[in-house]
Amino acid sequence: MRNAVIIGVGMTQFGKFLDISLEELGRVAVWKAIKDANINPKDIQIAYVANGLSGLILDKVGVIGQGVLAHAGFGGIPIINVENACAGGSTALRGAYLEVASGNCNIALAVGVEKMYCADLAKSVAAMTTNTPYNNMGFQFSGDYAMNLRRYMKQYNVTREHFAKVVEKNSYNGSLNPYAQHQKPLSVEEVLNSRVIAEPLTLYMCASIGDGAAAAIVCAEDVARRYTSKPLVEIAACVLKSGTYRKQKETDPDIDTCIYTAKEAYQRAGIGPEDIDVAEVHDAMAPSEILLYEYLGFCKPGEGARLIDEGRTKLTGDLPVNPSGGLAAKGHPVSATGLAQAAEIVWQLRGEAGKRQTKNPKVGLTENAGGLTQFDDYGANSVVILKK
Amino acid sequence: MRNAVIIGVGMTQFGKFLDISLEELGRVAVWKAIKDANINPKDIQIAYVANGLSGLILDKVGVIGQGVLAHAGFGGIPIINVENACAGGSTALRGAYLEVASGNCNIALAVGVEKMYCADLAKSVAAMTTNTPYNNMGFQFSGDYAMNLRRYMKQYNVTREHFAKVVEKNSYNGSLNPYAQHQKPLSVEEVLNSRVIAEPLTLYMCASIGDGAAAAIVCAEDVARRYTSKPLVEIAACVLKSGTYRKQKETDPDIDTCIYTAKEAYQRAGIGPEDIDVAEVHDAMAPSEILLYEYLGFCKPGEGARLIDEGRTKLTGDLPVNPSGGLAAKGHPVSATGLAQAAEIVWQLRGEAGKRQTKNPKVGLTENAGGLTQFDDYGANSVVILKK
Repeated sequence: MRNAVIIGVGMTQFGKFLDISLEELGRVAVWKAIKDANINPKDIQIAYVANGLSGLILDKVGVIGQGVLAHAGFGGIPIINVENACAGGSTALRGAYLEVASGNCNIALAVGVEKMYCADLAKSVAAMTTNTPYNNMGFQFSGDYAMNLRRYMKQYNVTREHFAKVVEKNSYNGSLNPYAQHQKPLSVEEVLNSRVIAEPLTLYMCASIGDGAAAAIVCAEDVARRYTSKPLVEIAACVLKSGTYRKQKETDPDIDTCIYTAKEAYQRAGIGPEDIDVAEVHDAMAPSEILLYEYLGFCKPGEGARLIDEGRTKLTGDLPVNPSGGLAAKGHPVSATGLAQAAEIVWQLRGEAGKRQTKNPKVGLTENAGGLTQFDDYGANSVVILKK
Repeated sequence: MRNAVIIGVGMTQFGKFLDISLEELGRVAVWKAIKDANINPKDIQIAYVANGLSGLILDKVGVIGQGVLAHAGFGGIPIINVENACAGGSTALRGAYLEVASGNCNIALAVGVEKMYCADLAKSVAAMTTNTPYNNMGFQFSGDYAMNLRRYMKQYNVTREHFAKVVEKNSYNGSLNPYAQHQKPLSVEEVLNSRVIAEPLTLYMCASIGDGAAAAIVCAEDVARRYTSKPLVEIAACVLKSGTYRKQKETDPDIDTCIYTAKEAYQRAGIGPEDIDVAEVHDAMAPSEILLYEYLGFCKPGEGARLIDEGRTKLTGDLPVNPSGGLAAKGHPVSATGLAQAAEIVWQLRGEAGKRQTKNPKVGLTENAGGLTQFDDYGANSVVILKK
């Protein structure tokens, strides 16, 4: 396998765009990435396009990526439509990475696009419940997260205030991010006083639904300088796993697919968690960011809340996490999220993150997870390590 | 890239199975392939799972493959859900091929599974129209095919009888195939007298909707002998393209994405169309098999009907096409089709095709196409060349 680098990224703002089509959202992200990479669309040899919910929400099915690329004004290349629930974007990135790293092509495009808002909000809500483990009990994701969080709170003396502090941090970051769906900084009090969704989760702790798209151009390192003079961002590891640890969790609640995904990613990149300078993690329910600190090895089990208390994961801390605002502030149009995370890390590594720029990071990480099933704790868990 | 071989295939019968779940169909195909390959499920390092219509027809969305593999009794490996309309199965096969050929893993699984029948048939029908180019005119695929066929008939003096002869041949083949959805041999008269769907297409010329699954195990050639003593079937080429020739077709009606896909496949395999001993092609509307003879280089433009007249593509001919019965007889559960084609060619090359076995073929081809959009003649076109 040869080295692959990201030479261009792009995204739309995330938000509620009832009058903008899925294809148009995709087009905007794709062309921003193309311009950022300074390539011609004809240089793109293959495309991976992630989308998850068009069947249920938009009554639209099949060859979504072909529609996006045709609308973007080009085509004729192989297009592979992928889906992995909330980890669809990272799955598309992994595909583009493998095409380039394997030598199958020099330049590959990864796109993630999702429209979750539609005129009939009931459809959007229903789409979120079809594959949760207990959906026949009326469960949504929030309930599943909530149960796990309550167990964690009890085990490690973690409080609702800790969870609210994550939102305080991320909503502040989001307020500095022009792409974010929610740009209002929230105080701990506002978070705790917002309405309860599933105890201990309050409204502002939960990612809302959203529309949006994000894209990345992956290029063989040895030809990348033909196109761009910007810093090259190497994909040092791009690992995807599915979890089967739901049963084991009954006896070892600290177990999680993410632990194994991260371990393999660190190994492939030849680094450890101590080498990570900035991270974007999957806080679809913001408190889970604290657990992810532990799963990703940023601290030991039970010590996650301390990182929040000490402000270490703020923009100004030694390990900024979710500088973009994370899923709860930036928005979470499911299949776009993994690529939006990658875009943020690329901007951070290049020093292009504007008001939310962290201090000269050299190594960044994205963690993206999706799809609970009755048997898996995650249908797909992705950890990507990016290096300047 | 290193050599990759198919060491196991499996499929369900195609048909109408209202009481069998999508997951159960997938499980059966996966385990048949596992047993055929003589591997342990733990040997499988990654899975590509194709499914297209669950969102619209089953109100089910997300991580379909995770559900199938969990139901099959295993998981924990990366699972990549892919979609490419009727070419989804070949897209999954291409993914598994790339994982193995690139050296990323030794054994990869490709699965295609589709349930098109449901209690409310209107949903099944609606799902077939969402992405045709003129769906706002009430068009279905049959109309698009019919227009192209009428042009072809006029240009080359081809008759409805020629088209019916394709069905006569393929329905006979299907009658010998225990996996086929329709196992009744049809006469030319029966085909012509069946009701008109879209002139010149009659009912028996059109693939019906269906439920089913098919799977293949792809393995690195250099370790394949650890598992199987059966003939190894090499993936000599596995090419996927998207078409943008709709505009060009106005001035050059003989142009088709398949021509370019096949050309690249022959080049990669280092052979020509004259080396193909047996083929499975995408006859969703049976008459298009005649056009595919031409696109695949089996004869010159306008000479396809002669191959039918001379019986050369019958089981007993020098170039048997669709020995399985093809899509119209075997059935066409869309995302399963590409892998069912591959299964048939593997059986043919191994001499395991029973009553429909062709004469000692050494090189086989599958052609699988899917997804019309307003801009593309095919959203995805796949040509795979398999060698004993």
